[in-house]
Amino acid sequence: MSDRLQVFAPASASNLGPGFDVLGLALQEPGDIVEAEQAEISGVEIVEVTGASSLSADPEQNTAGIAASAVLKRVDPAQQTGVRLWVHKRMPLASGLGSSAASSVAGAVAVNELWGGGLSRHALLGCALEAEEAASGTAHADNVAPSLLGGIVLIRSYNPLEIVSLPVPSALRIVVIHPHTQVQTAMARQLVAERRFEISQAVANLGNIAAFVSALHSGDLALFGRSICDALVEPIRAQFVPAFGDVKKAALAAGALGCSISGSGPSVFAFADDDGRSSEIADAMQEAFRQTGLESDRYVGPVSAEGARVLPSSG
Amino acid sequence: MSDRLQVFAPASASNLGPGFDVLGLALQEPGDIVEAEQAEISGVEIVEVTGASSLSADPEQNTAGIAASAVLKRVDPAQQTGVRLWVHKRMPLASGLGSSAASSVAGAVAVNELWGGGLSRHALLGCALEAEEAASGTAHADNVAPSLLGGIVLIRSYNPLEIVSLPVPSALRIVVIHPHTQVQTAMARQLVAERRFEISQAVANLGNIAAFVSALHSGDLALFGRSICDALVEPIRAQFVPAFGDVKKAALAAGALGCSISGSGPSVFAFADDDGRSSEIADAMQEAFRQTGLESDRYVGPVSAEGARVLPSSG
Repeated sequence: MSDRLQVFAPASASNLGPGFDVLGLALQEPGDIVEAEQAEISGVEIVEVTGASSLSADPEQNTAGIAASAVLKRVDPAQQTGVRLWVHKRMPLASGLGSSAASSVAGAVAVNELWGGGLSRHALLGCALEAEEAASGTAHADNVAPSLLGGIVLIRSYNPLEIVSLPVPSALRIVVIHPHTQVQTAMARQLVAERRFEISQAVANLGNIAAFVSALHSGDLALFGRSICDALVEPIRAQFVPAFGDVKKAALAAGALGCSISGSGPSVFAFADDDGRSSEIADAMQEAFRQTGLESDRYVGPVSAEGARVLPSSG
Repeated sequence: MSDRLQVFAPASASNLGPGFDVLGLALQEPGDIVEAEQAEISGVEIVEVTGASSLSADPEQNTAGIAASAVLKRVDPAQQTGVRLWVHKRMPLASGLGSSAASSVAGAVAVNELWGGGLSRHALLGCALEAEEAASGTAHADNVAPSLLGGIVLIRSYNPLEIVSLPVPSALRIVVIHPHTQVQTAMARQLVAERRFEISQAVANLGNIAAFVSALHSGDLALFGRSICDALVEPIRAQFVPAFGDVKKAALAAGALGCSISGSGPSVFAFADDDGRSSEIADAMQEAFRQTGLESDRYVGPVSAEGARVLPSSG
């Protein structure tokens, strides 16, 4: 048991084309850092939030605090000791990259590690999901699970919650472009929840998500690329991502295997099978956003095999 | 080039739980046999249909004839020689086991083989689908593809048509029970086509079909079993299969990995991981149908790795 540590939890791309609410993957960067220490206080205190002036430091309003509290109740039911947190936001909010999930996961893992790491990954997932549900009203696990576990993750079922880790072909690269605009997740989710769908739309996504999974297992990246199609939610969400059609066209023209919106956007992801090409794809996507007046950030690299982790102590 | 031969094409189970219109598998039995010989006639003649008095021997009304004609136009565009067919129905009609698809496939393969086997599997699939579309108004490939190719087959996309063969764990067994009643496919499909679905129903099937595919690749039959869930069409179609709820309960109580309706029914399938248990599951399912006054046929065994094939000549 250590009395002070830092945990990094990565950003994540979710949906991944055909897999609304059931597919997500961990990025190598960006991500959030939560610093935590045991303290002779009751419950959870957030000392400071850095990197995002709009985020609350009230532990009941901040996903890192809520998740930390959920873990604390399990690892120390008598509540004899509390925990102080410093939440370092190192990634954009409302970006479609699982910002609140990264904070939830980092908060949950930090407290668990401080108390000796007794909770299972499944229990930690439950705690981070509690925080997501408290913050957004819905417990979707497609950001929380990859941020916690790393890799490409499938949520087979929400009730009961069952997570399946999928294999990641070594050549696979992901390009994420975050344009400097925001999409409100709650509004984006409500539009999808209100919509009713034809069976043909579901059939299209069923065929593609099945091929997506088969291609990850067999390493067939061409098939994988063809499976990055979404007939259900991309058509609804594309309207909130300025120039999405142009950005996608630019990505595919530059050699992307496939391209779609991450989560509820505005971030857009593309897959590639090679480092050099990833970089060219990122250039082309950023240029397409620039044409519409939007600057952007880029994150390019392999899928992160690691999820949340304790950082080496600097002292 | 032979001038007379017999082709067997197997029955198939389709949908397989989460995979409406995109998953199907080949059974070892039953199946249809089409006998074919080259003849100095124009086009296709059906000499005889055995085993199903209600089926037309008009080659433009019978899927074996339509598929044979589609192949003939490609292998012999000048139409210098025609073909005579004998169609032996060895399986029930309107059973949910791909009866018309088996005839289509057998007709297509028989003509192709008579002319030297020049068409690719993909081209044969197209010809068999033409027959299905002419007969039923919709070209769904989830029976035709497994009957032609064998194994467990995914239709990633209908336009363009792309088929992916999935691995079949060696321990996997399938139980199909065909109760002696009929469901009209066209009516069953129309009910699904008219329905509108909530995103949560699609999400449930997306999670399960992805797990289904992952489990086939990893050989995890427990996960495979949990993935046999259908929130989209099983609830609509269950009403047309007498006592379906009881039959499914009986299958699961007897140790089935999972259980659902094959195609539009009335056949019900279950998966198992062992020969002895398959037999007990079949007993329990047949008994549940009997309780509601229905006798039934059973087909129990491995998934057939082989699809349509030329039978050894008896002469």
